[in-house]
Amino acid sequence: MGKLEDAVNRQAELLSQRAAMLVTEEELKAKIRRSLEEKRPLKVKLGVDPSAPDIHLGHMVVMRKLREFQELGHEIYFVIGDFTGMIGDPSGRSKTRRQLSREEVEANARTYHEQATLILDPDKTHVVFNSSWLSPLTFADLVRLASKFTVARMLERDDFHNRYSQGQAIGIHEFLYPLAQAYDSIAIDADVELGGTDQTFNLLVGRDLQPHYGQEPQIALTMPLLVGTDGKEKMSKSLGNYIGVTDNPNDMYGKVMSIPDEIMGDYFELVLAEPGHSVEGMMRELESGKRHPMDLKMELARRIVAEFHGLNAASTAQDNFLRVFSQDALPDEIETVDLEDIEAGEKVGLARLLAMCGLAPSSSEARRLIKSGAVRVNRERQVDPSALIKVTDGMLLQVGKRRMCKIGIK
Amino acid sequence: MGKLEDAVNRQAELLSQRAAMLVTEEELKAKIRRSLEEKRPLKVKLGVDPSAPDIHLGHMVVMRKLREFQELGHEIYFVIGDFTGMIGDPSGRSKTRRQLSREEVEANARTYHEQATLILDPDKTHVVFNSSWLSPLTFADLVRLASKFTVARMLERDDFHNRYSQGQAIGIHEFLYPLAQAYDSIAIDADVELGGTDQTFNLLVGRDLQPHYGQEPQIALTMPLLVGTDGKEKMSKSLGNYIGVTDNPNDMYGKVMSIPDEIMGDYFELVLAEPGHSVEGMMRELESGKRHPMDLKMELARRIVAEFHGLNAASTAQDNFLRVFSQDALPDEIETVDLEDIEAGEKVGLARLLAMCGLAPSSSEARRLIKSGAVRVNRERQVDPSALIKVTDGMLLQVGKRRMCKIGIK
Repeated sequence: MGKLEDAVNRQAELLSQRAAMLVTEEELKAKIRRSLEEKRPLKVKLGVDPSAPDIHLGHMVVMRKLREFQELGHEIYFVIGDFTGMIGDPSGRSKTRRQLSREEVEANARTYHEQATLILDPDKTHVVFNSSWLSPLTFADLVRLASKFTVARMLERDDFHNRYSQGQAIGIHEFLYPLAQAYDSIAIDADVELGGTDQTFNLLVGRDLQPHYGQEPQIALTMPLLVGTDGKEKMSKSLGNYIGVTDNPNDMYGKVMSIPDEIMGDYFELVLAEPGHSVEGMMRELESGKRHPMDLKMELARRIVAEFHGLNAASTAQDNFLRVFSQDALPDEIETVDLEDIEAGEKVGLARLLAMCGLAPSSSEARRLIKSGAVRVNRERQVDPSALIKVTDGMLLQVGKRRMCKIGIK
Repeated sequence: MGKLEDAVNRQAELLSQRAAMLVTEEELKAKIRRSLEEKRPLKVKLGVDPSAPDIHLGHMVVMRKLREFQELGHEIYFVIGDFTGMIGDPSGRSKTRRQLSREEVEANARTYHEQATLILDPDKTHVVFNSSWLSPLTFADLVRLASKFTVARMLERDDFHNRYSQGQAIGIHEFLYPLAQAYDSIAIDADVELGGTDQTFNLLVGRDLQPHYGQEPQIALTMPLLVGTDGKEKMSKSLGNYIGVTDNPNDMYGKVMSIPDEIMGDYFELVLAEPGHSVEGMMRELESGKRHPMDLKMELARRIVAEFHGLNAASTAQDNFLRVFSQDALPDEIETVDLEDIEAGEKVGLARLLAMCGLAPSSSEARRLIKSGAVRVNRERQVDPSALIKVTDGMLLQVGKRRMCKIGIK
């Protein structure tokens, strides 16, 4: 008995690490206890939007938690939200929710699964499509479902509350989506549902509704949202502040190195699941000056790249990074841009030259870059946008540390 | 052309008489015009609650308007709301909306049709069941329907608004019912929907949604609600202040005679469709003392009874009423109550005697009635509740004008 309780407590402690919210710990322990006694794995649900299949580090926060469940023997259910995906947004209000074809949904689900199993155990990962139980629902079924939840509680959800109080339209159908998501939990009889903190409300709806269908309420477990490379917003593809899990090693390494120092700790904890006390130790070392932020960030970048591309690739990415950025060395390969209309020795305005080589989108943007001190010609900084440059074959143009080319003259 | 316009204007004017709201007159005229040109009757919809099939005078306000439509050649569609009736209220909150069986729904619809065709032309009256189009709706269909209407607009409906602002629960399913009712209009492609003023919101939802399904918006026509015999509340079976269209002539006559004088005008106008100017004339005659209220109310009662039972029955009911109530005559038949424990000549307290005969529910209530001057013994008023009465066989006891009995002594 003591041994069982020890195991229960160990699992519960591990699973609640890094969580933003766990409702409730007691119920989680009861489920784990029964799972151990009956040798029946818990069903752990994650809802997946089929319109954005590419997984980035922001998703990893939840993925890593799912892996912890798997390591304890539990099973993951990806519920692909193809039902709503195939309806699109019938009010025509949302551009992001355009209607997807059956083929697109399936292709996206495959992509998602491939990327997710970079980190998850495919044998304990199930992929199910919610259209299979939502499509057959009748109006009567829906009335029954909808009767279990009130308008007032729905309007407590942050985004609904804000839109309602600001006089922005909420379609009645939008009230049906959280109910549909809750019904997903009922359909698979979920023991646990995971999500980011932005999913808190929806997870609790599922919890609320399951008992009306004769089920135990699911455990709602939310994970913090990872801030993107801009250090401000939640990481997301549409904001462009993301690091994709399939980014190549050099890009991945470079993007991690570009995050602000203040959020390094979050990345260690949320992306790499570094224990809290260890992260605190690192932060103390930084504060005391015992360790340089650059050094710590390189460790972070190396470990993240290693996670997805292996240790060798991580070392190579680090070497590249050090050569190009830290030591101000040039990379092995630099693109040559052939300027066909220019003759060797001809004088060309620097701003125009940058634009011709594609290092600036326009002459005016090029002038701005020059004034800001970002531009070098043959390693020498140039700050006069009106400067006339005598162009030679093999001349090196640089904008910042990462954009550069050689000029080719025939 | 002038002739057509005359006909259009005549119909529109007639149909808008007594209406509380018409949205819009212009659209109604356009529909009438096309109906005349294409010799295609308008489809006039009335939603019917299958849980309360008995029609009372309150329903007559709308029925009479429906008859006017029929007289102009248009067709009536009773949409029996069996779909929601067969679901009941799944939240279990409403006792009145219990689940009905298919058999009950059909029996109620037959009863309703029988009673409605006391006044309507059965050849131009169609009965349809909304389950036939609501049952097959899928979740996807419903999402599409629900996307056409906003939460904010739904919360503008008076009852929702009040409940929401008072913190009373509104189930999400309750938002689906007005959409279902609107979908009824779409399913039958209604030209006009009628209802009491309490249906205003729902009628306008139908109007709003039809164009999203490629239909012209229906005309929303609401009629005032008839106040019940208490002179205060809307007439309704559950409040007990109603006059049923199948009440027997004497009851119907008596109930009409019991309404307060102030609402007689409404009954003339709404139940009998007496033109407004004529009703105003009657009211002027009352005010000037040219006509006695009792006289006018008898005309009202006679005409209402005649409507449902014919002129002869109306005359008989009036004769009965006059004998019993107005002329203080006794009715033909008076019940005899045998008092087995009392001997002829015995003296009994009056209050106790009334209670023994069932003319008062208790001695204390009997004392109150005596004090109020409502009690007579052998035609003589008695006001002393402590009076001892020498009981004789055949003695007549009266409470007010309508409750009386004879005493039987063996």
